[in-house]
Amino acid sequence: KPKEQAFDKNDPYSNDPKRHPAIIPASSKPFNGEPPSAILTDNFLTPNDLFYIRNHLPVPDVNVKSYKLDISVQGPGKFTSFSFDDLKRKFPKKSTAVVLQCAGNRRSEMVKIKPVKGLNWGTSAIGNAEWSGPCLDDLLKQAGIDIDQVTQKHVLFGGMDKDPAGSPYEASIPIELARLLKRDIIVAYEMNGQEIPRDHGYPVRIIIPGIVGARQVKWLTSIKLSNEESMCHWQQNDYKGFHSSIDWNNVNFKSVPAIMELPVTSAICEPIEGTDLAPDADEVTVKGYAWSGGGRGIVRVDVSIDGGKTWDSATLSPPKQPMYKTFAWTFWEATLPIPKNHKGKVEIICKAADLSYNVQPDSVEGIWNLRGVLSNAWHRVNISIPKS
Amino acid sequence: KPKEQAFDKNDPYSNDPKRHPAIIPASSKPFNGEPPSAILTDNFLTPNDLFYIRNHLPVPDVNVKSYKLDISVQGPGKFTSFSFDDLKRKFPKKSTAVVLQCAGNRRSEMVKIKPVKGLNWGTSAIGNAEWSGPCLDDLLKQAGIDIDQVTQKHVLFGGMDKDPAGSPYEASIPIELARLLKRDIIVAYEMNGQEIPRDHGYPVRIIIPGIVGARQVKWLTSIKLSNEESMCHWQQNDYKGFHSSIDWNNVNFKSVPAIMELPVTSAICEPIEGTDLAPDADEVTVKGYAWSGGGRGIVRVDVSIDGGKTWDSATLSPPKQPMYKTFAWTFWEATLPIPKNHKGKVEIICKAADLSYNVQPDSVEGIWNLRGVLSNAWHRVNISIPKS
Ligand SMILES: [Mo]
Ligand SMILES: [Mo]
Repeated sequence: KPKEQAFDKNDPYSNDPKRHPAIIPASSKPFNGEPPSAILTDNFLTPNDLFYIRNHLPVPDVNVKSYKLDISVQGPGKFTSFSFDDLKRKFPKKSTAVVLQCAGNRRSEMVKIKPVKGLNWGTSAIGNAEWSGPCLDDLLKQAGIDIDQVTQKHVLFGGMDKDPAGSPYEASIPIELARLLKRDIIVAYEMNGQEIPRDHGYPVRIIIPGIVGARQVKWLTSIKLSNEESMCHWQQNDYKGFHSSIDWNNVNFKSVPAIMELPVTSAICEPIEGTDLAPDADEVTVKGYAWSGGGRGIVRVDVSIDGGKTWDSATLSPPKQPMYKTFAWTFWEATLPIPKNHKGKVEIICKAADLSYNVQPDSVEGIWNLRGVLSNAWHRVNISIPKS
Repeated sequence: KPKEQAFDKNDPYSNDPKRHPAIIPASSKPFNGEPPSAILTDNFLTPNDLFYIRNHLPVPDVNVKSYKLDISVQGPGKFTSFSFDDLKRKFPKKSTAVVLQCAGNRRSEMVKIKPVKGLNWGTSAIGNAEWSGPCLDDLLKQAGIDIDQVTQKHVLFGGMDKDPAGSPYEASIPIELARLLKRDIIVAYEMNGQEIPRDHGYPVRIIIPGIVGARQVKWLTSIKLSNEESMCHWQQNDYKGFHSSIDWNNVNFKSVPAIMELPVTSAICEPIEGTDLAPDADEVTVKGYAWSGGGRGIVRVDVSIDGGKTWDSATLSPPKQPMYKTFAWTFWEATLPIPKNHKGKVEIICKAADLSYNVQPDSVEGIWNLRGVLSNAWHRVNISIPKS
């Protein structure tokens, strides 16, 4: 069972930080929330206080003076520890704009088909920030570890957020992925040029570009090279993708790998669902985001205002990143003529293709799954055109 | 206009090799053909004489004694040449099982929606072979070229097959991709342990794992590092993906990048369309392949025998390759009970998810495009169950 709805013993959440009033809560303990979708496309870099918040446990209150990041290798044991000051002073600082997205972003579209377990996210459990800090590779080298030579098969990241039994949040990535992203993984101590807010991992979190939010461990305090992947609940028994006939009676979480790279997605941020255009409007400007996992840039966003019968090409604003290392999102915009034969309502659809020409699936039905993750079907928004 | 249906001047095709009688022709000059789908799943490594043949031009007749592979860099010019003997003796031999797939594989499904330009491929314009030869990286190093340091943006591969004006087939890949695949690109002189058949590039072809067939230049005679991508027709004005409202009047081939990595796909190879099962059969065994570009392994193949209302999980036979460098295909199999309420006919569907949890799109309509490429919708096969 997901642990999210759990425990309220002496309220471990009483020390959680204050959140921006524009953040729409999805749950309160732990706190989860997303900004209104129309705010997302206002800024290429999502402001820190408007960035979606995804907590699995109470927010730790970390004293930066006693903060330690421990590096260890299964077998030999502890290699070294770095203080916060070490991280800031001893290593070159790397900065990259990277999208983080919750595996459950757009879950609310799946819920309409059939109930699922999970937070009822809209389209804004995604954000793009510039993250700064040392390369993981530089830290490991300093600790005497060559990631291309180690025999361990996984890199584990431990957080300082703990469940009532005292077990911390933890996640891992396969060593193969750590090698592919060798110079791209950042041990981040800044978010958009500021210290990382408590909700986002103060003082240090890991940023693994192109993969699911669940592995971007916040309040990072340990990095371990291990023969086994993390045994944490969220690594083993959550955040995996199944077909729509798998239910809680027949699910086998061991049958598929933990989600890492995410599939291509896009969403319409403006206009929002239910918008009334000006009476007799003859066109509508549509804006949104598109993004894909694995650093695959967006090559095309297609938009339709007639239920998918005809399509237009949106104008893309790609980030200034290499095409095979496009970790930031691509904003897009299109101005579409309202079809003459509308009956007061039209449905707008968007769908994106990434550098591998992977595309979004047509229907939510086809990808429905018991945990409501990986919800990347064509995005649809319904708006009204009143008569004057 | 595609050049494929062109020229018959003194029949430059008269010296083409003989083909295996099981190969089903898609065109004769140039010759293109695919094996019957039920043969595909018989062998993890597709036999050389049953591997789909995709020629854009007449097949050259190459004298291996005078064969040269020229390496050059835009600016400095020619760096070096290697003889066939150099390739075999001077470098370590690398062998990898790699799928090649035509961008137009499964085009026949798009044709049913609306006509497209291109060969009417079924599901077998795909094959998996073990390719052997030096790493491209070793050749370049020997020529004094460090692929991580060059300023040129593209790697061009030139063939010995020529159009009537004397222009050779050519393709290129972005330098970024060449770097990502650094030790994986093979200058192949063997296919499944034998010399490469003439139809497949004798004596030497390039093998760039995880990307579209059109860049796997056969009869390879030149490798150039260049500031510009290949200007060849098939690089610039073909093998690109558009939405379904783009037609030959409004297409802008410059608007999207040339196809490189291919999207996730799968197909049912057995039973074939129109199969009559045994009278009153109560189950059917279904077999097929699944594969994705970019080395992304297959994590799941879902099969349905009730039009997608319910799904079963196929049993996968993944190749023995690393999960982020899975360049070979994954065969799969499932035995499905015939639904009790069938009326003599059932439709079988398959769909796959790859390591990034990208999935196949539901409908052919949603991905139809004027050239009929990237046809990776859910695959459907209709069979009959006679009454006894
Ligand atoms: Mo998440
Ligand atoms: Mo092709």
